[in-house]
Amino acid sequence: MGRWEPNARGRLEQSALELYLERGFEQTTVAEIAKRAGLTERTFFRHFADKREVLFSSSLQELMVTTLAGVPEAAAPIDAVAAAIEAAGARLQDRRDIALRRQAVIAANAGLQERELIKLASIAAAMAEALRERGVGDPAANLTAEAGIAVFKTAFECWINGIGQPELPQLIREFLDELETLTAGGNPSPSARRDDAATAARSG
Amino acid sequence: MGRWEPNARGRLEQSALELYLERGFEQTTVAEIAKRAGLTERTFFRHFADKREVLFSSSLQELMVTTLAGVPEAAAPIDAVAAAIEAAGARLQDRRDIALRRQAVIAANAGLQERELIKLASIAAAMAEALRERGVGDPAANLTAEAGIAVFKTAFECWINGIGQPELPQLIREFLDELETLTAGGNPSPSARRDDAATAARSG
Repeated sequence: MGRWEPNARGRLEQSALELYLERGFEQTTVAEIAKRAGLTERTFFRHFADKREVLFSSSLQELMVTTLAGVPEAAAPIDAVAAAIEAAGARLQDRRDIALRRQAVIAANAGLQERELIKLASIAAAMAEALRERGVGDPAANLTAEAGIAVFKTAFECWINGIGQPELPQLIREFLDELETLTAGGNPSPSARRDDAATAARSG
Repeated sequence: MGRWEPNARGRLEQSALELYLERGFEQTTVAEIAKRAGLTERTFFRHFADKREVLFSSSLQELMVTTLAGVPEAAAPIDAVAAAIEAAGARLQDRRDIALRRQAVIAANAGLQERELIKLASIAAAMAEALRERGVGDPAANLTAEAGIAVFKTAFECWINGIGQPELPQLIREFLDELETLTAGGNPSPSARRDDAATAARSG
């Protein structure tokens, strides 16, 4: 078998998610993932350090930090963070099927849920650092980054419960506006009350 | 030795924190904690399920949920959350020495840092639930609770780095205002730039 396999990473990811959903994350071995993808274990380990890394790659964090750093300097801190979380939202929307299956795997395993929280905290810290590099002081850097993660997390949960609709970048933009209203002491706007839609989607 | 020991819980907490700082959390046994407090292991287990629970009791979360539920119904969601996190801040300020030592223990142990993140996520979920019970819909309930935790976390870190000054409830109030400014697209206010003070406190 040659060193180069067409779309090996994508095939491994696909097989891993299928197996995690069928058998559970703990019960799945790397050998089984490789076999289902028609690849070797050696190829798996060229792409992932272990079976958990299939779920927690650092690519989303890199995208967010790069996006934040690329926002024009004159932009307000919240707008730089908004650009970062919208970019992440667009990436997840493009990979909607994978994101939904990944979340189903995580929802079934307490250890993976904890890992997800740690990942979000790590993204918040990386965004705060990127803000400080733009000259934003503390606590504004931490506060804006944490608020961005609060919006991202809430929009993401709503998106997952709505089975991918409305689109995630749109939810993120709405929730950023909603956070502004709420922190100013306002009451939630009717348009942001998605509980009925989400409930319908869950039971549908 | 009698069943009732004066302030047994406080003495056990004190001894546990001392030992965690001296020897490390992993290296400390319940037997050693009880011995230093002049109590029995049995007394320890009447107060705590295990040595980790000394650091992660649920009393702060209970205080926050009770406070939130007791805020007059006409209050805006963010004001109900503000009352909850300010109450938690006042409790920590009253127990400043214990809070600072507890944080030093947690900072030295990756597993405990993860547990702290999980605890904060649990508090956010509990506050969101308490908001829903007040009739606040989703996503406003989640968004306000998560934003409150963002403020609490950032103020708490600043307080720890400033070795307990300025007082935590005051930092929480300032950071709530700062969050409002930042989410409205403003730039950080000069008064909220505590980086110099925090740096001086850390190196002092």
